[in-house]
Amino acid sequence: MKIYPDCYSCFLKQALKTTRFAGGDEEDEWQVLKEVMKRLISLDTDQPPPVMAREIQHIVRDRLGKDDLYGQVKKDSTREVLDIYTELKKIIESAREPLDTAVRLSIAGNIIDYGSHDSFDLEETIKRVLRIPYGINDMNRFYRELERAEDILYIGDNAGETVFDRLLIETMQTPVVYAVKSGPVLNDATMEDAMDAGLDQVARIIENGSDVPGTVLKACSDEFIEYFEKADMIIAKGQGNFETLNEARRSLFFFLQTKCPVISTKLGLPKYSLVCFYHKPENIERQKENVS
Amino acid sequence: MKIYPDCYSCFLKQALKTTRFAGGDEEDEWQVLKEVMKRLISLDTDQPPPVMAREIQHIVRDRLGKDDLYGQVKKDSTREVLDIYTELKKIIESAREPLDTAVRLSIAGNIIDYGSHDSFDLEETIKRVLRIPYGINDMNRFYRELERAEDILYIGDNAGETVFDRLLIETMQTPVVYAVKSGPVLNDATMEDAMDAGLDQVARIIENGSDVPGTVLKACSDEFIEYFEKADMIIAKGQGNFETLNEARRSLFFFLQTKCPVISTKLGLPKYSLVCFYHKPENIERQKENVS
Repeated sequence: MKIYPDCYSCFLKQALKTTRFAGGDEEDEWQVLKEVMKRLISLDTDQPPPVMAREIQHIVRDRLGKDDLYGQVKKDSTREVLDIYTELKKIIESAREPLDTAVRLSIAGNIIDYGSHDSFDLEETIKRVLRIPYGINDMNRFYRELERAEDILYIGDNAGETVFDRLLIETMQTPVVYAVKSGPVLNDATMEDAMDAGLDQVARIIENGSDVPGTVLKACSDEFIEYFEKADMIIAKGQGNFETLNEARRSLFFFLQTKCPVISTKLGLPKYSLVCFYHKPENIERQKENVS
Repeated sequence: MKIYPDCYSCFLKQALKTTRFAGGDEEDEWQVLKEVMKRLISLDTDQPPPVMAREIQHIVRDRLGKDDLYGQVKKDSTREVLDIYTELKKIIESAREPLDTAVRLSIAGNIIDYGSHDSFDLEETIKRVLRIPYGINDMNRFYRELERAEDILYIGDNAGETVFDRLLIETMQTPVVYAVKSGPVLNDATMEDAMDAGLDQVARIIENGSDVPGTVLKACSDEFIEYFEKADMIIAKGQGNFETLNEARRSLFFFLQTKCPVISTKLGLPKYSLVCFYHKPENIERQKENVS
């Protein structure tokens, strides 16, 4: 997915939010904004938005001389969800359709996103996501694919959300390779965050070779690409993965909540919709038609 | 009031919205965004935000070769409020405190603002504003000043809102000079818009000599400045006038709704608060303390 004009104001917001979050002062804010605008003026807008989102994080890091801006927040998010792990497990086990409930919860976990939000209410989101209908519902296809899959590549998104992913992996009972970022970016999960969430107990964890908050295949490691090409089934979590993989030349499932207006429009959905979207390469043109 | 880092993303949003509103295509959107960012990179941020808002309007006008982007919207807004003029008049006349009700309605009319909104619900706003308490309530001071004033300079804001202003002027029964912009900018009222609203029947209308969507005194005409200095009392409507006059060296009343986060923070109020704020030069320092 390319960069739309609406992304530009959002990039500036993200830059400002990250600078403040990382403890920058007003002079840092101005300098970061100016640096970001300089890049935006000559930006190749055929790239997916997360490539620029990564650049913004690096601009802030360089300015403030800090590497892992969201380290503590990621630890806190993981701890917060681990604290309700048993409760969530019970919700799934006592559900009429445990797999559907586990999928919904994994999408609820996608609200833990410091890229598109100032704040969020996890408890409220869990309640809502268990109740509402899917905006895009390819769950029947998901059941069929899962039935026949012998291995799954599960492309993670944020720390904390990882614990929800673990619950889904436990429920699916199919061998999973879980992919994380190779370096810190926003609150995206790295190897350490995945280990903190206990994902090593239920999956093989690999790094994808990149620190883009999404999955830009040409920036990924050979190991990741091999899994990407050969896995029977792929689950990709969150908007960043949708933005970078929605034109991928293989089928995969996107599990996400629509949090940005551009993606909502692209999918023809209102904000905060629940999405289980089965992507097939031949559907790419259909998506394009939704955006002017 | 100076420009804050938060204003930058908002400037880009405003540029994009105006370009779309005026019928620009995606190429126009990109070019306008780039042009705006070029100005923002070297902008003097000690100026009030409306100076840049004016520049944005001119960038879009130059790009699209159109002068009055909101001409039709202004006609429509004025017509829409004139259609309920009699109804509004009755609400005021049958109120326990007609003057308070007229002030509230004039602030309700301030929701007709294409600078800070995509859309608004006038009817809902009228109901809300008649019911809620003031966020800042200097109405007692307003009554006292009005009692002794022999003339009022009323600095208008948007077309359509003008009809609400007319109702307040009719209720106050003190001679009023009503100031409008000298050229089209956003949906701010010009001489033609004020005439359309029937303000010429209740006030002397003057142009302020400028097309900044606010009141930058050094850009205003001598005639306006004379009224500004000599009027017994000044009422300034809307955020744009607050942003440009909140450090003015004379007392005046700001009647507005807080629609932008920076102004809300500056005034220590939630969004969409009802404000009747008596500005005295010695209060400038107090305002500054509210913003980090």
